[in-house]
Amino acid sequence: MEDKYITLAHGNGGRFMRELIDSVFVRHLANPGLDVHADAVTLPLLGKELMFTTDGFSVQPLEFPGGDIGSLAVHGTTNDLAVAGAIPRYLSLNAFIEEGLEVAQLERIVISLAQAAQEIDVQVVAGDTKVVPRGNGGGLYLATTGIGVREKQLSLALNRIMPGDAILVSGSVGDHGTAVMLAREQFGLKGSLKSDAATVLPLTKMLMDYSGLRFMRDPTRGGLATVVHEISQFTGHTVRLHQQQIPVRPQVQSVCEMLGFDPHYLACEGRVIAVIDNAQADDALEAMRQHPTALEAALIGYVEEGGGHVVLETELGGERILEELEDDPLPRIC
Amino acid sequence: MEDKYITLAHGNGGRFMRELIDSVFVRHLANPGLDVHADAVTLPLLGKELMFTTDGFSVQPLEFPGGDIGSLAVHGTTNDLAVAGAIPRYLSLNAFIEEGLEVAQLERIVISLAQAAQEIDVQVVAGDTKVVPRGNGGGLYLATTGIGVREKQLSLALNRIMPGDAILVSGSVGDHGTAVMLAREQFGLKGSLKSDAATVLPLTKMLMDYSGLRFMRDPTRGGLATVVHEISQFTGHTVRLHQQQIPVRPQVQSVCEMLGFDPHYLACEGRVIAVIDNAQADDALEAMRQHPTALEAALIGYVEEGGGHVVLETELGGERILEELEDDPLPRIC
Repeated sequence: MEDKYITLAHGNGGRFMRELIDSVFVRHLANPGLDVHADAVTLPLLGKELMFTTDGFSVQPLEFPGGDIGSLAVHGTTNDLAVAGAIPRYLSLNAFIEEGLEVAQLERIVISLAQAAQEIDVQVVAGDTKVVPRGNGGGLYLATTGIGVREKQLSLALNRIMPGDAILVSGSVGDHGTAVMLAREQFGLKGSLKSDAATVLPLTKMLMDYSGLRFMRDPTRGGLATVVHEISQFTGHTVRLHQQQIPVRPQVQSVCEMLGFDPHYLACEGRVIAVIDNAQADDALEAMRQHPTALEAALIGYVEEGGGHVVLETELGGERILEELEDDPLPRIC
Repeated sequence: MEDKYITLAHGNGGRFMRELIDSVFVRHLANPGLDVHADAVTLPLLGKELMFTTDGFSVQPLEFPGGDIGSLAVHGTTNDLAVAGAIPRYLSLNAFIEEGLEVAQLERIVISLAQAAQEIDVQVVAGDTKVVPRGNGGGLYLATTGIGVREKQLSLALNRIMPGDAILVSGSVGDHGTAVMLAREQFGLKGSLKSDAATVLPLTKMLMDYSGLRFMRDPTRGGLATVVHEISQFTGHTVRLHQQQIPVRPQVQSVCEMLGFDPHYLACEGRVIAVIDNAQADDALEAMRQHPTALEAALIGYVEEGGGHVVLETELGGERILEELEDDPLPRIC
């Protein structure tokens, strides 16, 4: 493709659009299941129990330390399948591209997306691009929809959570939200922090071996606090977290103190929160800590009968209620 | 929901987002398969042969005579499944909502989307919303991803097309593109023309009964000309169309003459182009004309051995080559 920047003609169904799709998308995403000449593709999934999910991405900036909107679009959606107990198999990809986006940047992002998909053996088999006029787009928005296969019979759901269950987190919280914020020039901050954006599939596969596993979730928008809120709201039980046990990187802590944020509400894109029968919690925690992506996994709290609150026990022995997030201080982190 | 306009807080993973999702999306889209508390939903499709497709929507204006971006998001994606020979079953929905969008308009669009889905017995089972800052969004972009089930063994594909095959169109071309354009105030034109946006599922189901059916497609971006171009490019054969046989509404013709457009390149959103063994073409055409959505169906041309062009025989007996679309005069019609 000769053009250096995206123009409206790249979205209009003609030759320019075909060239964009062939030279940027198909070139990097090519796989046996992708057929750009078909209106719909056949999925060879006969006899499988299927799971389905979708996610949209409008992160700003499009590229940030530790990831970009392309890899994020793979991790976000496939992580949703993984925490639901499925093995991701197929993705569709929608791109809303703003007129004026540099083609080289788009290509870097598509390459990153393709690599993330390949890493977890997921195929992008359907796609669509739209080009929106300059000033109507934020550069690039992506949406991915995923199909996964449930291979084990363990059923995971909020309604399986019981008082006494332990809550595990696979690593430090708030890295992604903080890294994206540091990448925005408007804050005038710099740091070496990287996003935690990554696949959680190896971890969720491992955790699925525990019969006492009740529920898993990846704490994205709204962070850890929002996940435990959903648990307490749905179950009517209280979630009690021990602040000292919650892993928070020093850089994340500093940025939060400087700007008045609470790291418990900041997004992760490569962590798992798992609720598990307390009798299996120590074993599961030990197994997680053996895994390169969960070296800092921690048992951060318990579900308590009744109440329906989220209580954070502070380091000094006090406690406070973690309220439901009303307005995220860091929009567009995914 | 009390707010009159969408704010960034409606996208930030907290209480406001939950209220928006509950009061606008879940309220109208509720169905047994939709579970907003799950990261991914199970699809009860064991033993079915599945087809998969996706489409993005950035039409401007969001509401136009004959449809809106909501119903279009259902028709566009389910029509892609239908022309591929599948019965649409499940959809996912992504919404990129611009800060400042009127909640009442969003709700009208979601209601329209829900009605379109209900009409063809398709369930929206997964969804995601993102709110983008004012000036970064064009009001609303949607993406839908569809899963369908192939119920008949007839395989449809470009490589089944043979010289001598007839080309049918289910109704007038260019209505959607023209109606959307008339709805844009910038053109200063008014008219009673409505978009043809609608489901093509009843028609495609009927056409699937013909063993000689080779290929179907809905002529959206780039219109009829772009579909026949893909046929000629893929097969290496010439497609010869008879201009007099191609149904074009008088209002579409007038607007095209006034503005210098060619209706063969303008989008439809509720038409089917079918390539069929000529021996069954008359029967199939007759059957289409009995159907309320294809009263004006027509046999518009044939596939000819070799050449690889698209030839339009004009009313005066001349002929011209229909070139591949380079740049659509009407962007953002879907």
